[in-house]
Amino acid sequence: MNNFTNKLYIASKDHAEYTSMLNNAQLDDLVITQDKSLANIVLADPPLVAHDLNQFSKMEWLQSTFAGVDALVASGLRQDYDLTNVKGIFGQQISEYVVGHTINYFRHLFTYQQQQLKSQWQPHPYQSLDDKLILILGTGDIGCHLAKVCNALGMKTGGVNRTGIPAKASPFKYTFHVGEFRSAVKDADIIVSTLPSTEDTRGYLNAARLAHADNALLFNVGRGDVLVEDDLIPAIENGNIAHAFLDVFEQEPLAKSSPFWLHDKITVTPHIAAVSFPHQVFDQFKENYLRWYDGFKLQNLVDFKKGY
Amino acid sequence: MNNFTNKLYIASKDHAEYTSMLNNAQLDDLVITQDKSLANIVLADPPLVAHDLNQFSKMEWLQSTFAGVDALVASGLRQDYDLTNVKGIFGQQISEYVVGHTINYFRHLFTYQQQQLKSQWQPHPYQSLDDKLILILGTGDIGCHLAKVCNALGMKTGGVNRTGIPAKASPFKYTFHVGEFRSAVKDADIIVSTLPSTEDTRGYLNAARLAHADNALLFNVGRGDVLVEDDLIPAIENGNIAHAFLDVFEQEPLAKSSPFWLHDKITVTPHIAAVSFPHQVFDQFKENYLRWYDGFKLQNLVDFKKGY
Repeated sequence: MNNFTNKLYIASKDHAEYTSMLNNAQLDDLVITQDKSLANIVLADPPLVAHDLNQFSKMEWLQSTFAGVDALVASGLRQDYDLTNVKGIFGQQISEYVVGHTINYFRHLFTYQQQQLKSQWQPHPYQSLDDKLILILGTGDIGCHLAKVCNALGMKTGGVNRTGIPAKASPFKYTFHVGEFRSAVKDADIIVSTLPSTEDTRGYLNAARLAHADNALLFNVGRGDVLVEDDLIPAIENGNIAHAFLDVFEQEPLAKSSPFWLHDKITVTPHIAAVSFPHQVFDQFKENYLRWYDGFKLQNLVDFKKGY
Repeated sequence: MNNFTNKLYIASKDHAEYTSMLNNAQLDDLVITQDKSLANIVLADPPLVAHDLNQFSKMEWLQSTFAGVDALVASGLRQDYDLTNVKGIFGQQISEYVVGHTINYFRHLFTYQQQQLKSQWQPHPYQSLDDKLILILGTGDIGCHLAKVCNALGMKTGGVNRTGIPAKASPFKYTFHVGEFRSAVKDADIIVSTLPSTEDTRGYLNAARLAHADNALLFNVGRGDVLVEDDLIPAIENGNIAHAFLDVFEQEPLAKSSPFWLHDKITVTPHIAAVSFPHQVFDQFKENYLRWYDGFKLQNLVDFKKGY
């Protein structure tokens, strides 16, 4: 090891897997260090390093293992390093989560499971997903992946973003500006928030906005604080929301005392809509390390101002 | 009403809806009759007319409200009329059923529902559907629709048919001849039968063929007698089948005494994977009636020899 050797500190619940993959990959001039003060590169689950950032005195680059880096872009934290996140690997899992729950809802699959336990043969009328309108908040790679899957399932797809302008080769049938939420949501059968937590998005789904929905399914698979949790049950009682599927919460794990757990129109899951599979994260870290080593710009750089 | 007026007899559990749609559509020279012996056109759920076929002494054309016409092509029944079925409207619903249950299985959605009842926050490791191989028996419109949806979900798709030749613009990555089942099935993560009940398909999924599967999910959404029901539980016990999702059975409703009901690796649903929505069936009947009226060949004519 010389002075030009890059020193990597790993802070992740999947520490053992990353260490093993790094050892197998034999990346040039990269060694693992256990000393935060020596590391110039950090591979980390954001919540595990957010409170220790200042201990990494030589840190030049931090590769997040998550898509959501809100823990690292919070105000007051240092921003004197390159922060990269992972992209393009969560759309698949988020799509499975949204489509799976939507099919369960419209096709009564939980009901049939309950009936089976009683050896009961009883069909129920149902609606197909065909022609349902799904409104997706966020038209980044996750929103676009979900829109493509929904298109294949015969649904109509609308996207909401900060510009109101469709991306190149956009899979969305309609694209709305965030300011057009009211007209965007009125015909939506399903609303999905894939939004990150930023100054602009926190509390976006509040009573005033939810009031414009009409008997829609609501998914939150982005960040918990995009939804004002206190406004949800009233929106259900007012008929704006038919059922909410929540995978993320203002505080996680969700408190035992939350009224969401036992509400029959709310489905709670423990932040499992999309997880970081270490082999996929490692592929992106490795690609970025090779760029770093060769002096090229890193991929998936986070804009500290935007927060994603 | 004159001698040239077409007389339609309706035999369907959705009789009232069809009558209402017919009255609204005001089709030229078409009236509804309650007298089987006067009808030259019949719109029917196959099981409801299979035993009365000979009473329709003037029948020229029967439009089935089902895709599956096995009740009408059984041996000994008359074949001196045009039989048409409905096509292109079940692929959507079948896709929802297969994809919904597959996501529930791999993503543990029933488990999370059970945990929610106990206010329990407990994530579980899981696999994504990405790169799973789904083998679909039958490459007609239902199989093709399902393959397209599975492609959008990142799965690899294989089709099995009587020729081994891919259809034009086939959505399948691989196409196998029925005789190649052994090699087709060995890497399959999911097997789906969409096969109709014909002389060639009855009992196709038997112990000898199931023995080549390796820990696969098995769906039967075609006709019950394609699967040898007695061979299923041994195939599960041998590790060939990880879980079976059965929507159709040799006898329906499934007998209360069937061991399938309480088997934890078998999901039973009451023939709801795809139903005939009257407005969709009526669209096809109307289109066919206009052809009939103008002297053109009917669409979706059933080949009595093939049985579909």
